[in-house]
Amino acid sequence: MFISVVSATSRRSSNTRLIADTYLSILQSKGHQAQIIDLADVPSDFIGQGLYNGKSENPSWKSMQDIVNASDKFVFIIPEYNGSFPGILKVWVDGLQFPSSFKGKKGGLVGISDGTQGGALAMGHFADILNYLGMNTLALRPRFIQIGKHLQEGKLTNAEYLKFLELHADQLIAF
Amino acid sequence: MFISVVSATSRRSSNTRLIADTYLSILQSKGHQAQIIDLADVPSDFIGQGLYNGKSENPSWKSMQDIVNASDKFVFIIPEYNGSFPGILKVWVDGLQFPSSFKGKKGGLVGISDGTQGGALAMGHFADILNYLGMNTLALRPRFIQIGKHLQEGKLTNAEYLKFLELHADQLIAF
Amino acid sequence: MFISVVSATSRRSSNTRLIADTYLSILQSKGHQAQIIDLADVPSDFIGQGLYNGKSENPSWKSMQDIVNASDKFVFIIPEYNGSFPGILKVWVDGLQFPSSFKGKKGGLVGISDGTQGGALAMGHFADILNYLGMNTLALRPRFIQIGKHLQEGKLTNAEYLKFLELHADQLIAF
Amino acid sequence: MFISVVSATSRRSSNTRLIADTYLSILQSKGHQAQIIDLADVPSDFIGQGLYNGKSENPSWKSMQDIVNASDKFVFIIPEYNGSFPGILKVWVDGLQFPSSFKGKKGGLVGISDGTQGGALAMGHFADILNYLGMNTLALRPRFIQIGKHLQEGKLTNAEYLKFLELHADQLIAF
Repeated sequence: MFISVVSATSRRSSNTRLIADTYLSILQSKGHQAQIIDLADVPSDFIGQGLYNGKSENPSWKSMQDIVNASDKFVFIIPEYNGSFPGILKVWVDGLQFPSSFKGKKGGLVGISDGTQGGALAMGHFADILNYLGMNTLALRPRFIQIGKHLQEGKLTNAEYLKFLELHADQLIAF
Repeated sequence: MFISVVSATSRRSSNTRLIADTYLSILQSKGHQAQIIDLADVPSDFIGQGLYNGKSENPSWKSMQDIVNASDKFVFIIPEYNGSFPGILKVWVDGLQFPSSFKGKKGGLVGISDGTQGGALAMGHFADILNYLGMNTLALRPRFIQIGKHLQEGKLTNAEYLKFLELHADQLIAF
Repeated sequence: MFISVVSATSRRSSNTRLIADTYLSILQSKGHQAQIIDLADVPSDFIGQGLYNGKSENPSWKSMQDIVNASDKFVFIIPEYNGSFPGILKVWVDGLQFPSSFKGKKGGLVGISDGTQGGALAMGHFADILNYLGMNTLALRPRFIQIGKHLQEGKLTNAEYLKFLELHADQLIAF
Repeated sequence: MFISVVSATSRRSSNTRLIADTYLSILQSKGHQAQIIDLADVPSDFIGQGLYNGKSENPSWKSMQDIVNASDKFVFIIPEYNGSFPGILKVWVDGLQFPSSFKGKKGGLVGISDGTQGGALAMGHFADILNYLGMNTLALRPRFIQIGKHLQEGKLTNAEYLKFLELHADQLIAF
């Protein structure tokens, strides 16, 4: 079993990436093979016509697609942007091979926000998309609200949030 | 009153653009000032770090932002991509100035699809985002299903769909 | 202009009703005619076959329908039940005359919860329904989280929440 | 493994019930134990205060709760009412014991409609609720549109729809 942890923003050095790294450590500490897919690595010429013509020619895109193909499970760490998921997440999904990339695979979602919504709508919207693509998703969806208060020197300091990630990882592994 | 008609895909020469052009003609024939915003014109280097740093430096982006600033109302022509709206639409929204771009303005949605869903979820998801941004949206949301059957030589041939666009435009103008 | 304030739970003496009463006072203090519709008053034999056969025979149902018919605008005070709106709210909507009850009218939503979600999904779901029924809804959707902390002796004590209700009422009146 | 097939309307002799019966036959023909839960059997005094006080006293309610407790998996046959699921479905969920009724169990959804939406939003909304309750749901969500055209003398006559139900049942069993 190979699990990809998707850091769902194109922003570099994001809080989202910190949570993704934390999730990766949890998976690895439980003896599972896992890897980060950081959407900050989506080629910058990817939108526009790249999405429709010859997208596989871009080597950095091809390598992303290869990791997706090799993954059995996914966890999406989704920051709340304008009340939903970041556009880059859907652009990335729109560019992946269909339906082989996600069909029949399994996934989980974690929402984070500066405010108090914690990505409730972001995860609801994106789960509709994953369902459409044929990926079964875990019911458990952590909502990490006011995330800025719970990160210090690059570490997640909220013990309850950490426990929630552990539980989520256990459920994703068993799913 | 100035109305922007957003063709919500980065694909060139799309069916979506045809519907957008049809909507534009209806608005102009009723004596209103209107313009197309074609998301195929989003600068191709826009994702990646362009979204966060110095985005206003890109002249083609700046011109898009200027049209948004000048618009009182918007209608979004949304093709269904993977069960929701195209990622480019949200990337574009994520890059616009907040909250001045949409707050207190008014909008409408039209969904189109090759299948039978007609963008029901796409419009539901995107309306949640517009609400979050403070834009009031029209209840009336045409769903144009199996759109390929209703376009011929670049024209929308379904009389019922045309009437529905007329009604929508009337409501958007009066909104 | 006549505005109905819908207390969207069948629970008697609810926190929802307190918020509804507060909203009513705000409307009245601004000189507007308004009334509460308390869903605790939905006749208890309403589900089952009452919904489909002879529903207008029940006098208490008929009086509810009369108030709906007389209303130009609605505000729905929606407590979060199991991650969405209470079932009674949709049962009530399903029993009302269609499409005259809501079509072409205007509405607003306020979400309340004991937890931190504040009815984000509840309002998203219910707004989809109101859109379907032809009611334009306000973008502004207050989310009152951890409501129990902000009520004392039957009064809403959080000044920010009160200000938010004022703003919402002003927007609903002007909508 | 015991599977409940929920006919999610309070209407008697509904098309929804016909689809539920068809699904039940498929499960039984594959050698699985299954039973219908018909929401037309929800006690008619259930809303109002029954929902909050002494609900377990009603014998017909108690028997419904017993079947839910004994079920490992559920499939919800959901007709589209006013653009979403019928209110009775959520009233029923709101009355069930929490969280034991659904937590850690598995479910699937089938949407039916007279129009062309096929319950896309109805299933999206209800899946959000099931997720909240801790039930993992299948990605595959058949949308049976214009259902009236595909029923004759109490039988589902559309071969494609029947095949879709078979596939759904296979996935639910294996889930």
